[in-house]
Amino acid sequence: GELDGKTYPMTKDEAGVWSITVGPWAPDVYNYQFNVDGIVAMDPVNPSVKLGFGAFPPANLVEVPTTDGALAFYDAKNVPHGTVRIETYHSKSLGVPRTLWIYTPPGYDSGNQRYPVLYLLHGAGNVDSSWMMTGRANLILDNLIAEGKARPMIIVNPLGYARQGVSLGPEITGTPTPGAGLTAQAGIPPQTVGFANDLLKDVLPFVESKFRTMRGPENRALGGLSMGGGHTVQIGLNNTDTFRSLVVMSAGAQNAETTYPAFFADAAAINKKMKLLWIGVGKDDFALNGSNALAASLKTAGINHTFRLTEGRHEWVIWRHYLNEVAPLLFR
Amino acid sequence: GELDGKTYPMTKDEAGVWSITVGPWAPDVYNYQFNVDGIVAMDPVNPSVKLGFGAFPPANLVEVPTTDGALAFYDAKNVPHGTVRIETYHSKSLGVPRTLWIYTPPGYDSGNQRYPVLYLLHGAGNVDSSWMMTGRANLILDNLIAEGKARPMIIVNPLGYARQGVSLGPEITGTPTPGAGLTAQAGIPPQTVGFANDLLKDVLPFVESKFRTMRGPENRALGGLSMGGGHTVQIGLNNTDTFRSLVVMSAGAQNAETTYPAFFADAAAINKKMKLLWIGVGKDDFALNGSNALAASLKTAGINHTFRLTEGRHEWVIWRHYLNEVAPLLFR
Repeated sequence: GELDGKTYPMTKDEAGVWSITVGPWAPDVYNYQFNVDGIVAMDPVNPSVKLGFGAFPPANLVEVPTTDGALAFYDAKNVPHGTVRIETYHSKSLGVPRTLWIYTPPGYDSGNQRYPVLYLLHGAGNVDSSWMMTGRANLILDNLIAEGKARPMIIVNPLGYARQGVSLGPEITGTPTPGAGLTAQAGIPPQTVGFANDLLKDVLPFVESKFRTMRGPENRALGGLSMGGGHTVQIGLNNTDTFRSLVVMSAGAQNAETTYPAFFADAAAINKKMKLLWIGVGKDDFALNGSNALAASLKTAGINHTFRLTEGRHEWVIWRHYLNEVAPLLFR
Repeated sequence: GELDGKTYPMTKDEAGVWSITVGPWAPDVYNYQFNVDGIVAMDPVNPSVKLGFGAFPPANLVEVPTTDGALAFYDAKNVPHGTVRIETYHSKSLGVPRTLWIYTPPGYDSGNQRYPVLYLLHGAGNVDSSWMMTGRANLILDNLIAEGKARPMIIVNPLGYARQGVSLGPEITGTPTPGAGLTAQAGIPPQTVGFANDLLKDVLPFVESKFRTMRGPENRALGGLSMGGGHTVQIGLNNTDTFRSLVVMSAGAQNAETTYPAFFADAAAINKKMKLLWIGVGKDDFALNGSNALAASLKTAGINHTFRLTEGRHEWVIWRHYLNEVAPLLFR
């Protein structure tokens, strides 16, 4: 079996059952896969699955509970729960149907309050469902809101690829022909232009027309993990009139001051403008160098930011913690 | 590779790439898995996955498009789309948190109309997300409603096991200790009592308090596939004062007249009471005998029903078709 990036040999007992005992592991969520004679296989009896493909294929999840039965910050406690909504929209930028996974906080349906919005992006191999179904962003916010630690907010998870949404029709796996709305932005790499256009020209207007959102850049945050952290850097540093809070998890950028000259041109102005610039990475994460480089660029330029170097690797075990840590800082 | 229940050998080319050409297949959705030296493995590059476990483990899905580019009845057409909502509730009957996947039709959010409700149950190995994410119940209804073929309705997908919902906390995989609400009903087998109590005493009140539902048994339908079809028989035939339409897909019952004596006691009264009793099964489905037996019991008793014997096996390829066929018949 494989767990936490390590491979553990399993042994076969007299009854023919293969097993391995590991741990104790700290209460948290862990990925695992079986490796049978070199073939990666799913656990056939565990319904808890992290969807994925490519470099990050599907894996099973195991939730290690606390020894005293206490529920964790990402568990479904008996508190008021928000709703996760899946909305289907037709992206004019990309010319294809896509879905948004959207968290509305407890009380949204029965009230008429407006809420700030966190646009929260997934990583490579993830899909639009990943932040809710694997990351439990909805339960983390339910618990923070119940304890008064985070402001009630809407969370929007788009699909992070410039392609048709999964499970909406004949599978279009390449980059679709963009519609009339696709325009380049200086500093946004070609492979991100399609997604950036969809986010800015389709997703934002859809969300702000359909949901009771608070308007204005100070009420919009952009964040993401891994590839989504890269998107956050690429789109966020170029669109400070749209997003005033940025959350970069397990990602970064080399030579950001060269790639995003406008952002780095006037530190005092940016410091006055931006509400939050948060970077988190684990000591054993392969993205460590990029995160370090971005933090160093910001430090050199005198741009306010928070750099959190934590334990951990490139795994959901840290991203749940990061969301729990950063959500209370947003929209203050 | 495995496709449509058959196994096809793959061959390795000079570049080391394994491949197989099959078909042509009719435009539809098909499961497949790779079998590598006896080990079942996922396709590492396909993000479209049917979740599952136990006798029906995870598999990849491939959507075969039409040759002329026309979209199918289950594809995301450019029509008004309803919303899929995931609601978290705490089941008093079962003492655990669970989720409901709920479809609200186009216009639900902006109007104040009330809607009839189809409670639609998944099969063994499926989870609460399966009818939407694999079965595309939401897109099928979007398309039927847009064409005026089905009445706008709410669809509710509960989790069909008497256990905690997946992805809500420490994994409770056995049957949890039931709360005070768990009571037996004559004719409901012991393994279904927990689910039946949750459905009748927790899910229904939750849905009817939170959503704009039309009340009364004539505005409630119960349906399901495979294990969920079994649940529909077991719960539906015992609760004709709650549900007046029943949809049994790929399931049935031997000796139903003996197991459900109240339902079979007075055919004229039942015929007057029930709005729809629909049974569908494929000629190559392993559930064929049970479906045949249920249809025969109803025929012998003179109870009105529709029995659809179709092509097909025990697969999503037929359940999408069944929903498309039966939804227009509901709540008429």
